[in-house]
Amino acid sequence: MSDRLAQRLVSEGVGTGLLLAAVVGSGIMAERLSGGNDGVALLANTIATAGALVALILTFGPISGAHINPAVTLCFALRGKLPWRFVPGYLLVQVAGAVAGVWLAHVMFALPTLQVAAVAREGIGQLAGEFTATFALLSVVWSTTRHHPEATPYAVAAIIAAGYWFTSSTSFANPAVTIARALSDTFAGIRPADAPGFLLAQLLGALAATILFTWLPERDDA
Amino acid sequence: MSDRLAQRLVSEGVGTGLLLAAVVGSGIMAERLSGGNDGVALLANTIATAGALVALILTFGPISGAHINPAVTLCFALRGKLPWRFVPGYLLVQVAGAVAGVWLAHVMFALPTLQVAAVAREGIGQLAGEFTATFALLSVVWSTTRHHPEATPYAVAAIIAAGYWFTSSTSFANPAVTIARALSDTFAGIRPADAPGFLLAQLLGALAATILFTWLPERDDA
Amino acid sequence: MSDRLAQRLVSEGVGTGLLLAAVVGSGIMAERLSGGNDGVALLANTIATAGALVALILTFGPISGAHINPAVTLCFALRGKLPWRFVPGYLLVQVAGAVAGVWLAHVMFALPTLQVAAVAREGIGQLAGEFTATFALLSVVWSTTRHHPEATPYAVAAIIAAGYWFTSSTSFANPAVTIARALSDTFAGIRPADAPGFLLAQLLGALAATILFTWLPERDDA
Amino acid sequence: MSDRLAQRLVSEGVGTGLLLAAVVGSGIMAERLSGGNDGVALLANTIATAGALVALILTFGPISGAHINPAVTLCFALRGKLPWRFVPGYLLVQVAGAVAGVWLAHVMFALPTLQVAAVAREGIGQLAGEFTATFALLSVVWSTTRHHPEATPYAVAAIIAAGYWFTSSTSFANPAVTIARALSDTFAGIRPADAPGFLLAQLLGALAATILFTWLPERDDA
Repeated sequence: MSDRLAQRLVSEGVGTGLLLAAVVGSGIMAERLSGGNDGVALLANTIATAGALVALILTFGPISGAHINPAVTLCFALRGKLPWRFVPGYLLVQVAGAVAGVWLAHVMFALPTLQVAAVAREGIGQLAGEFTATFALLSVVWSTTRHHPEATPYAVAAIIAAGYWFTSSTSFANPAVTIARALSDTFAGIRPADAPGFLLAQLLGALAATILFTWLPERDDA
Repeated sequence: MSDRLAQRLVSEGVGTGLLLAAVVGSGIMAERLSGGNDGVALLANTIATAGALVALILTFGPISGAHINPAVTLCFALRGKLPWRFVPGYLLVQVAGAVAGVWLAHVMFALPTLQVAAVAREGIGQLAGEFTATFALLSVVWSTTRHHPEATPYAVAAIIAAGYWFTSSTSFANPAVTIARALSDTFAGIRPADAPGFLLAQLLGALAATILFTWLPERDDA
Repeated sequence: MSDRLAQRLVSEGVGTGLLLAAVVGSGIMAERLSGGNDGVALLANTIATAGALVALILTFGPISGAHINPAVTLCFALRGKLPWRFVPGYLLVQVAGAVAGVWLAHVMFALPTLQVAAVAREGIGQLAGEFTATFALLSVVWSTTRHHPEATPYAVAAIIAAGYWFTSSTSFANPAVTIARALSDTFAGIRPADAPGFLLAQLLGALAATILFTWLPERDDA
Repeated sequence: MSDRLAQRLVSEGVGTGLLLAAVVGSGIMAERLSGGNDGVALLANTIATAGALVALILTFGPISGAHINPAVTLCFALRGKLPWRFVPGYLLVQVAGAVAGVWLAHVMFALPTLQVAAVAREGIGQLAGEFTATFALLSVVWSTTRHHPEATPYAVAAIIAAGYWFTSSTSFANPAVTIARALSDTFAGIRPADAPGFLLAQLLGALAATILFTWLPERDDA
């Protein structure tokens, strides 16, 4: 493995790890502090996630693209924006980093490291939510990386912040996030039995956006 | 219909649809989670709407201008910034997309698709609110698209976020949003009988800002 | 009066008016919705004020500089950045616009237009708060307009948002805002007897920052 | 001492002072207003801190680099980005400014100036939190100052906002902040006995990020 590929993989792994530490850690803190008001807890979880996304994409983007999301990596490969030979490594470190990030959150909050989630997230509505969330995320990624890449970190954080509230599934929109959150029995968890449906809906949503933005024009005078 | 026009119309339709899914969906989620504290609910609704606006205008702006608002489309045509022949199509897909977005929100949250709103929004104060909100929105649009277009998505999201709180009507400021929200009996709904007054106030506010910014200078050393 | 000066004055007047409508209107809405939790109310007031500042400075900055604050106008004149002959007009429309904005907020929320505030804001601590808030605001204005003017609207909104919480006086930091808020018996009001102390503290804070940034260098390799 | 060094030191001192006034002052205000809901209080503290960071880094960055953090200053010196002869002065004014900022917050809120904190912050989890927080902060600083310095103020504010929630220690991530907050018996305080562990974890986290980003590439086509 070349030094250059190693640098990319470390970047994706650390980036996805810190993202999951932020998502799961802030969920734990939010539930502890919000006095039973889930609205306050999800607001805190939203702000922490959006802040982490802005910072992490700005930080790791110049090194590995900061996909920190297997759906993004697969769609980039599909459209020839990432060599396929990079894909297995990217997916592996994203999932491994995500799981490590969840465990780091557990360590920081003095919880048992190994857990299995119990939060049920099921039904057609939530699958429609994941399809919509990932469709919206990939639309944002395709258009902003093409037309104004300096705005991509803010746009991604903004659509995920919105998605935490407007999708019934709270917008996982990321297979590595889904797998890792199945390993946390906290505010941000997802029961393992519900994960496969989420993954399928995410990949279909990502694919739909990729098809749409292959058809839409490169730029216009609009 | 040219391929190019089709692309613009799909962009406006999908953009307005996702905006309404965000506005109505986050309203449903916010009401469910906020434990009866409407302040917490409107904060969540505000953050979700602002996030969606930033992301959607960045995403669909380069393709169709991302008006996602008939008042913007009409004022752009009035000042010669959009050919009149595009206007009927823009208005049609904005309204159709908005209605579809509301229905998507209902599907995601496992509610009946077809609804009629019951929330009363009436009185001189709320009409003054819509006039003010749309006046402020169009002022922002006219000045930022002219002087620093890269900031328009953030400025639009910022004025709508403020408007959710500072106008008594919570700043619909958009005829397509108004029509579509009449079809949702949820936190974000508006009773159909109250919609025409909102539409009129919005168009007058948009017109007033358009007249003002036709008179104001293109740029200065200020 | 030249057409150009008229345009500047309309810009400052409308800008300050919308700012006050946002500050006072969001205070009214926040108090109504927050169920007695003043923390939730001030969060909403903060977000609305910051959103309005970003949007209004982006919108009116290219026309009149968007001081929307007599302390800024006076300090700009002191350092020769604004001709003294513009100052009386700027101050007049800022105060008049601010008062009109407060009245607009009252109309929107169906309250009596003419009011006098009853909220006591007094003591050495609050005066230290206003001194600090205006010192910080003018520091931000002097440095960002000089070194990265495209960031000024965000920086001003950010320091005022912080100031709503970190100063005991909730960071009025603006003589026109102070005078106008004395005319609103709502969440954002200030008892007229407390206003003169606020004005004095604001002017001293502004002056201190102006002196400091006259001494600090124009730019460096730091 | 040259005039130029004096300017840098004043900039670091005033910047760190205002940061601490914002952190501690907003903590006091938040606790008073949030009606016992610590989630609402920490949300307010988060927004105030993030706003202050954006504004202060934009303001003092062009003059002294706006480290406002001894860990940043030491790592910059380690990698040759700051002459070692500047380091003692930077550290001194950062700590002195931080303490003065805490005292200013106490004065503004009419509390006794001299205090000693009582909030216990201890355990392996919180030390892991400080290591993670400072690792993430320095990663953000190293990558953004290199690849898109205009985004550094927003990225730093974003990672600290996230860290307030995702680390069990609420992300002090700054030795000057830690020392100064030991002198405030309020929401943001830290018991002096817990401070040395925090300082050690912070320095180790900063060092780890510095080693990582010395190895990672300067830029790539990713």
